[in-house]
Parts: sequence; structure tokens; C-alpha cells
Amino acid sequence: MHFRFPQRVLFKHCDPAGIVFYPRFFEMINDAVEAMFGDLLHWPFEVMHPEHRVPTAAISVQFRAPCRHGDRLDLQLTIKAVGGSSLALNTRAVADGILRFEADQTLVCVGPDGRPCRWPENIRQKLGGLMESHS
Amino acid sequence: MHFRFPQRVLFKHCDPAGIVFYPRFFEMINDAVEAMFGDLLHWPFEVMHPEHRVPTAAISVQFRAPCRHGDRLDLQLTIKAVGGSSLALNTRAVADGILRFEADQTLVCVGPDGRPCRWPENIRQKLGGLMESHS
Amino acid sequence: MHFRFPQRVLFKHCDPAGIVFYPRFFEMINDAVEAMFGDLLHWPFEVMHPEHRVPTAAISVQFRAPCRHGDRLDLQLTIKAVGGSSLALNTRAVADGILRFEADQTLVCVGPDGRPCRWPENIRQKLGGLMESHS
Amino acid sequence: MHFRFPQRVLFKHCDPAGIVFYPRFFEMINDAVEAMFGDLLHWPFEVMHPEHRVPTAAISVQFRAPCRHGDRLDLQLTIKAVGGSSLALNTRAVADGILRFEADQTLVCVGPDGRPCRWPENIRQKLGGLMESHS
Repeated sequence: MHFRFPQRVLFKHCDPAGIVFYPRFFEMINDAVEAMFGDLLHWPFEVMHPEHRVPTAAISVQFRAPCRHGDRLDLQLTIKAVGGSSLALNTRAVADGILRFEADQTLVCVGPDGRPCRWPENIRQKLGGLMESHS
Repeated sequence: MHFRFPQRVLFKHCDPAGIVFYPRFFEMINDAVEAMFGDLLHWPFEVMHPEHRVPTAAISVQFRAPCRHGDRLDLQLTIKAVGGSSLALNTRAVADGILRFEADQTLVCVGPDGRPCRWPENIRQKLGGLMESHS
Repeated sequence: MHFRFPQRVLFKHCDPAGIVFYPRFFEMINDAVEAMFGDLLHWPFEVMHPEHRVPTAAISVQFRAPCRHGDRLDLQLTIKAVGGSSLALNTRAVADGILRFEADQTLVCVGPDGRPCRWPENIRQKLGGLMESHS
Repeated sequence: MHFRFPQRVLFKHCDPAGIVFYPRFFEMINDAVEAMFGDLLHWPFEVMHPEHRVPTAAISVQFRAPCRHGDRLDLQLTIKAVGGSSLALNTRAVADGILRFEADQTLVCVGPDGRPCRWPENIRQKLGGLMESHS
């Protein structure tokens, strides 16, 4: 694991069944990725933009157990692979020792024209270093 | 294809890059599924609840091309498989003849206790009939 | 009244109490205003931007009665005043003959620099004509 | 001021103009109120519900200056009045010493039937004590 992001389940996240409305999980994942770029890679989205962006090209999520109002989720992000312009991330969300959901996503670094471009060299080095140190 | 759901890309959907913020696509998919249950299966969510619910157990999305403010998406839903308590759905979102994203998701019918339960018989028959007629 | 916007209360709008989570009403109001600019003024937001925008400078809402999943809201927009660069709008949301909420908001026409600018002349004429015809 | 709630402006909050989409401010206000009930009154929403809820009956917001991605907002909540079943709150959001928006809202304590009910005595005492200590 390379980065952790705490996320309490708030009233705004929950649906009439009292559990998280699942599109809200993708906001949480997006917030966690934004925090990882800022805090771990020191490349905050607001600095990165508009020269670069890192849109999600694909994402797959398994919802393992429901999340309820007040649950304290621990999102655990692991960098799985670093390509020339891509990044594969795995996110596990755990609360009370129980895996609630698990996501695998692929981000792509794009330039101002929205087309894939290589990671800036310093970012690529950081990502590579992280991969090694946690392998 | 069993059901179509039009969705214009609105201002609220778009991010600073002028394209849809991807968690919003999951709201669109949820709205399309809600419309399918109401209009195609005549089992609107507000009638279904709280006796039954159909949470998403897994979803996988490929984002093929960006969606911009004003795009007129056509969400095309296909029932891929019907289990005792599950439903596999494929959703393709097309605008201007271009596939923008494609989602595969599994819904599970659950009872008031949140545990999987069999589809009500009339719903199961409708789902089965739809599968046959479009095979 | 100058414009009507139907809005069914969907699953995504509702909170654990089974009623609309109130920030969702502001998305509804924004959607209604976006539709009014497109359908009534023939100045869709995606055409207007980025030369102009019409951010909300102030909004005040009274929530009169709860809105539940499945309710069919009729948002009724009335242009109350047109200034050089401002627009005062009143929105009443009614379902089953009962007023659910009422909003008063002020929009301001701004230029690419985010500073107030005068309404384009054709828009100003349309707004003025609408005010007269419904006075 | 009785309670402060920090809120960084995130990517998810921002619209194509690069500023906060205003319905998102109401989510921020809701989060701040939820935190105030949990941290200041020790009556977290997830404990309060479903015996009581505190829906917003009215809210009025003035947007003074735009908020941009990365801005660090400080939401400053002040209890303005405590009624038998109501609470008047003022929220000022400041970043970089500049007032960005200011909200006045009225919450109402309701019971399981959704009808107004008196504040529980211990909550009423806390609210009263806070009013006095900051007057």
C-alpha cells in the first residue's frame, strides 16, 4: 500500500436504504486519488491543471459489504503498474476490519489537448521509486 | 438492446476540463436503470422499496471518448443474464455515433434485511421474456 | 410564469429519511435555469460559454413540504426583474397541488474575466419582452 | 463564532469555469452542520437518526467571491438563535482573508414522523450555553 485516505461516511453519501449511494464511492475514490497526487507525489491537481490531467480511462469496482452512515472508511491505495502515460491503481476500502469495496482503475496522463502524453520525468521517477520500495 | 435512456450532458456534469466528471456517469447509469425498472418492468423503485432493492454488486466501466457539455447521450441497456437473484446489465452510451463509455454491472435483488432474495416471479418472467425476445 | 420544468424525484435525490437531500434541489434549480436559457431564450449554456456565464450571486429558498421518491415536481420559473447585467428569478416547485419549495435567486451575466457585463442586446430584448407579456 | 470547519476546494466541486458549482456549497454547508452536531454538540447525525432529524427549513446564501480549485475555505458557523424546535445558523466561508459566501439557515428539529418537536433538553441546554458564552 502506498497511500491511505480516511473517509467518514456522511449523511450526504447515504440513500433511502441508509447505505452509501454507490456513485458517491467514485467521488470518494476521486478525492483519494486527488489527495495522493498532492500529498504523495507533490503534484496537486490544481497545479497540474491545465497543462496535464489524469482522467480515468477504466474503473472496475466490487462492492463487498455495505457502508453505513458514520462508518469510518480507510481507503488504501496501491500503485500496481506505471506505464509511459498510464497508471494502474488498486483501492481497497476497509472499515471495522471488513473490506467494503475494492476498485481497480487506470489513469492516463493527458496534455492540454486531451491526448495521452508521457508522465513528466520527475513524476515518473517518483512513481517508479514508490513501486520499488513497496514491491 | 432492451431499453434506451436519453441523457443530455448538462452543466452540472462537467468538470474544469469541460468534460463530464466521471462519477457523474454512475449517476446517469443509476438513473437509466431506475427508468428501466419503472418503464420496462413496471416496477418503479419507489414502489419496489423498501420490500426489495436492487443494489449494484459490481460495475466495470471503460471510458472510450470524452463527453462534453451539450452532448446528447443515448444510453443503450442490454440484459445479459438473469440469475435467481441477480441481473447482468450492459450499458453503452453513444453520442454522435461514437461510443463514449461502456459499462457492465451486476445488480442483486435484496430483501428488507439487505440479503439476496429471489426475483419476484412476475419480474423474473418479464426479465426472462426480454432475454428471449432479443436473443 | 414564464417557463416550466418537470422533475421527477429520483432515487439519487433522496436521503436516509426518504426525502430529497436539500442540496439536490439546487441541482434541480440549476437544471431548470439551464433549460430555460436553452429552450426559452435559445441561448444554451454550452453555446453561451465561455464568452458569457450566468453565475448565481444570491439565492434564498424556503422548503415548504418534503419531497419524496417518485414525486413529480413541476418547477415554475418566473422572471421577476431584468437589470443591465442581472436577472431576478422566482422558482416555485409544486407536486400534487402542494408547494414544496420556493426559491428566489439573482443571476449575473459575466464575461470571460468573470466580471459583470451587460446582457447581449438580443437576450435583453427577449427578457424584456417576456416580462411585458406576462405582466 | 461557535464552530469552524475547514474545507479545501476539490476537483469534484468545480465547474467548467474552474470555480465551485454552487450546489456544491450546500453540500459543504451540510457537512459543516453535520460536523458541528457531532463535534460540538456530541449528537452525531448517525446517532440522532432516526429518532430525530434536523432538516433545513430555509436557507439564504450570498455568493461574494468565487472559490477556485485548491482554495482553503474556513467555514465559520455561528448560532444566532435557538427556538423550541428551531435553530438559526450563520455560516461565513473565508479563504485568504476574503469572504467567499455567507449563509443564513434555519434548521428544525423533527421527530420520526417528520413533524417539529422540541429539542432534547440536553441539546437545548448546550445550545443555550453556547449562545451565552459567545454573546
